[in-house]
Amino acid sequence: MPRYGAIEAGGTKFVCAVGTGPRDLTTTRIATTSPGQTLARCLEFFAAQGKVDALGVGSFGPVELRPESRRYGHITATPKPGWANADVVGPLSRALAVPIGFDTDVNAAVLGEARWGAARGLRDAVYVTVGTGIGGGALSGGRLAHGLLHPEMGHLLLPREADDQDFVGSCPFHGGRCWEGLAAGPALERRWGQPAETLPAGHRAWDLEARYLGSALATLVLVLSPERLILGGGVMQTPHLLPLVRAQLLRALGGYVQADEILAHVDEYVVAPGLGQDSGILGALALAEAAVATPV
Amino acid sequence: MPRYGAIEAGGTKFVCAVGTGPRDLTTTRIATTSPGQTLARCLEFFAAQGKVDALGVGSFGPVELRPESRRYGHITATPKPGWANADVVGPLSRALAVPIGFDTDVNAAVLGEARWGAARGLRDAVYVTVGTGIGGGALSGGRLAHGLLHPEMGHLLLPREADDQDFVGSCPFHGGRCWEGLAAGPALERRWGQPAETLPAGHRAWDLEARYLGSALATLVLVLSPERLILGGGVMQTPHLLPLVRAQLLRALGGYVQADEILAHVDEYVVAPGLGQDSGILGALALAEAAVATPV
Repeated sequence: MPRYGAIEAGGTKFVCAVGTGPRDLTTTRIATTSPGQTLARCLEFFAAQGKVDALGVGSFGPVELRPESRRYGHITATPKPGWANADVVGPLSRALAVPIGFDTDVNAAVLGEARWGAARGLRDAVYVTVGTGIGGGALSGGRLAHGLLHPEMGHLLLPREADDQDFVGSCPFHGGRCWEGLAAGPALERRWGQPAETLPAGHRAWDLEARYLGSALATLVLVLSPERLILGGGVMQTPHLLPLVRAQLLRALGGYVQADEILAHVDEYVVAPGLGQDSGILGALALAEAAVATPV
Repeated sequence: MPRYGAIEAGGTKFVCAVGTGPRDLTTTRIATTSPGQTLARCLEFFAAQGKVDALGVGSFGPVELRPESRRYGHITATPKPGWANADVVGPLSRALAVPIGFDTDVNAAVLGEARWGAARGLRDAVYVTVGTGIGGGALSGGRLAHGLLHPEMGHLLLPREADDQDFVGSCPFHGGRCWEGLAAGPALERRWGQPAETLPAGHRAWDLEARYLGSALATLVLVLSPERLILGGGVMQTPHLLPLVRAQLLRALGGYVQADEILAHVDEYVVAPGLGQDSGILGALALAEAAVATPV
């Protein structure tokens, strides 16, 4: 049975793993320092774990995913010190000499959910994380969506709610015009003057938050027509937020999309991750699988 | 050389064609009456034109595209009298006994543009029509995007411009919250009190229109990351609108997407259709080609 390596490359930590799936996974966490030091520590982990047949990497971005680019496998224009234009795939490929699958962290997450989690067997699904930032990955027709670059759906533009006209927003690029600027953790903290995780369940912050999330998911339904929407990330850990979001998605769609899967079964249409906190690392493992199936 | 049939099925007219591509195409127009009568007249045209190897149909919607559905090939919940739940592919398939490719009119259009027009050779592109309504089709990784249903991107939600707060919008489902409700032809007519085609080039209507179109295209870039955006439809015939839209797309993105293709070459990134008014019918022909390559 093939054995794979996986890296979930984040701005704070790199999670590394070796295994075959959710029930057979050895993991470790490495603090993100410089690219050279961080990748060297990943390689030490893999050396200690023995031979793998392929590696998958789900990375923070933006990343270069076009195989024909000479920067393929690099993190590109990140503001994170030391990481702009860092080659991630190159050093790993030279050291391990196995096929490597590489994509964004959120594209990896949706692939992981489609392989083992809440989107199992589906070919069109979206995974969204709502936390310090907002990001999304999409599987379209069984393929991870990317073209010119890759989706940056956390910055899609949103209508302002009538009772929230004055908030300046928290996005450095789009202020209060985009999803992340209106609804990520830092937007909640700036609007209400306290960290999102300290806002009690009945606080009106959550009704407003659910309206913005519902509007954004409506746009994703209208653009991508996914078979399921999976919502992860720190803000989504808030109890009772998910049911509010489902109701607000229905409100935002306004009856336009006539599909029983949404209108009659929204509880199964908008769901929490099936893999809990492991969508990303298991998604990276699924990228490794896919790299052997179709080497890049 | 294979010879194909094509139908662009619209609410007002059906365009039928036989041929092999843009330089070899015989077309006719049939008024849209009842489904039975309209399809019978299409079949008369094909009978007179001789044998085809496959047929492609790009249809107004919503349509059922899931091959496993018993309603595959039907128009579904349209308000158009007589056409709700009309079977389009069934009667054509029984009469012609050839493989049939079936998709939305706008998905057909993006496929046609990728085959012979402004998106030739690309695997990720979006075609948008701005006219009486707004619709969009997407090619994602070489495949037309659909999942649960199909994209209905004309209804994606948009932030309201500060100088346009009071407009009620023209969408029966979303009022002034969605793209179509703010920027389709009927929205222009309702906002300014005269038909869009009578608004002169210097009218401030066009600056506002370009801002809404720029915002919507920004959301499409952020969700789908296409390699090119193609804008067709009646409203886009307005001289000088396209350059305004390009500028407003850049404004809406706010420098977030770091790609020279957008930042330095927006004139080649947002373009008019390469096939003029024929994106739809040629796209249907491309659907026929694809149906033989991979029968559904």
